[in-house]
Amino acid sequence: MLSLTILGSNSAIPAHGRNPTAQVLQNQDDCYLIDCGEGTQLQLARYKIKRSKISHIFISHLHGDHYFGLIGLLTSMGLIGRVAPLHLHGPALLIDIINLQLKAADTKLPYEINFHPLGEEGVISDDKKIRVECFKVNHRIDCWGFIFREKKNPRSIDPVRAKAYEIPASYYEALQKGADYTNKKGTIIPNSEVTSAASSAKSYAYCADTIYNEQIATIVKEVDLLYHEATYLKDLEQRAADRYHSTTHQAARIANLAEVKKLIIGHFSSKYDELDSFLTEAREVFDNCELALEGTCFKI
Amino acid sequence: MLSLTILGSNSAIPAHGRNPTAQVLQNQDDCYLIDCGEGTQLQLARYKIKRSKISHIFISHLHGDHYFGLIGLLTSMGLIGRVAPLHLHGPALLIDIINLQLKAADTKLPYEINFHPLGEEGVISDDKKIRVECFKVNHRIDCWGFIFREKKNPRSIDPVRAKAYEIPASYYEALQKGADYTNKKGTIIPNSEVTSAASSAKSYAYCADTIYNEQIATIVKEVDLLYHEATYLKDLEQRAADRYHSTTHQAARIANLAEVKKLIIGHFSSKYDELDSFLTEAREVFDNCELALEGTCFKI
Repeated sequence: MLSLTILGSNSAIPAHGRNPTAQVLQNQDDCYLIDCGEGTQLQLARYKIKRSKISHIFISHLHGDHYFGLIGLLTSMGLIGRVAPLHLHGPALLIDIINLQLKAADTKLPYEINFHPLGEEGVISDDKKIRVECFKVNHRIDCWGFIFREKKNPRSIDPVRAKAYEIPASYYEALQKGADYTNKKGTIIPNSEVTSAASSAKSYAYCADTIYNEQIATIVKEVDLLYHEATYLKDLEQRAADRYHSTTHQAARIANLAEVKKLIIGHFSSKYDELDSFLTEAREVFDNCELALEGTCFKI
Repeated sequence: MLSLTILGSNSAIPAHGRNPTAQVLQNQDDCYLIDCGEGTQLQLARYKIKRSKISHIFISHLHGDHYFGLIGLLTSMGLIGRVAPLHLHGPALLIDIINLQLKAADTKLPYEINFHPLGEEGVISDDKKIRVECFKVNHRIDCWGFIFREKKNPRSIDPVRAKAYEIPASYYEALQKGADYTNKKGTIIPNSEVTSAASSAKSYAYCADTIYNEQIATIVKEVDLLYHEATYLKDLEQRAADRYHSTTHQAARIANLAEVKKLIIGHFSSKYDELDSFLTEAREVFDNCELALEGTCFKI
């Protein structure tokens, strides 16, 4: 199972006690940090997410509200003695910014940063359990969205029943993939006799900062959870377009077109103190919607 | 009168709810920001100090806990429409770090940053009301302390009495400087008849991060308020020296040698959850000492 914890979802300037963008996607083993606005390391501590568990960091673009907290987090990871390598995905210039700041501090991190510059759309990370794809969105500067797809989980073996049917352990991998077993007497033991169905593989798409663009709906088609920015309420559609951002209705329209299971919206403009209208408006178009409020954990 | 508000005083890693180093020195007109750890813009908001009032920023050195919040603050100042020029004093590489990040974001600030690289010891800023000097301290990388000295205030004129003695307004500046007045009949009106004493000019010294160094006591001689770092308790003198930091007793010894009026200590190591011992130990050597706890405002 995947879970997504929101660490911040305010746009541009921290305001009304709301922090800039950062999210953590977790499965049993790993933490994937998505964007890292100023104060993210404090937010991780607040929501009891261990820095040491973060294996991958994805930075969508180089506007400060999406990455100014990164250098602090990387430095702190070093100060507490991290040795595990870290995968960092982001625009090419990001590593120059980090290296210049490390040089200025005369600091050599005790762990390796494997930096993967974003360039081509497609698969950028492929682990045992999760595959990550990136795609371009449309913002004032180069900006990327990310889709996280769990791999199809293996079927779960009932060891007592498998033993009763005298199935050798060397055949377990085939069982997990759904194969039936034929014993020495030629009797077929149906897979369903000794395994139970896997939980279905889930998917999460993060659309970063973007102007309304229906092509995104094709890319994030049918994901289980979609994060789409909604910087403004629906009446400010022109301002949203001028600033390469989206409104509540536009985010919800993408969710509708993509036929996703659930939508969360965030990146609220600092001009709004109160956020209830964001939810009301988005639900006018796509009902299964929630606000990406910090501290909220969405089970996917 | 000067007042100093502490925004953060933790070292290296934010911990125990404590923020990294930042302080604001204020007189009636201006705010001087001293260091700017991650989250400083949030701390400014928390303690109701307007970003727009900051006219000068001083960065002691390029370890992250002293400046990672700067780029966020500068960017936010731009986003809220600042046009007033800003004076920024810091190590030479600082402006390269800022410019690289502005370039990456394709951002041009709507106000001018007048950057003054730290190089020579001496006066670095000289306004109508405050003169600022910098001096080298001894840390793992180049690091600077700052002394802020109020200029001698003019004597205060009693306009009713001055008028009664028929002193022309053109002579007021001389009165403020302490001159007596001789009227047309040749009678001398003593200055004390028409003015009252100015409040005395105050001084504040900020010693940044430093190993114990008695030369500092000469430099900060007799200031009204001294901030000296005390990263460790007295039993860790060797560790302090190894890391170019100081202990409680060492900070207090500098205050004693310098014969300052009051000492505040900060830059507490993240290894300490509880800080009472810092105060107890420092007061064993120099009694008029306080902890530089965030949110505290010291009237100088």
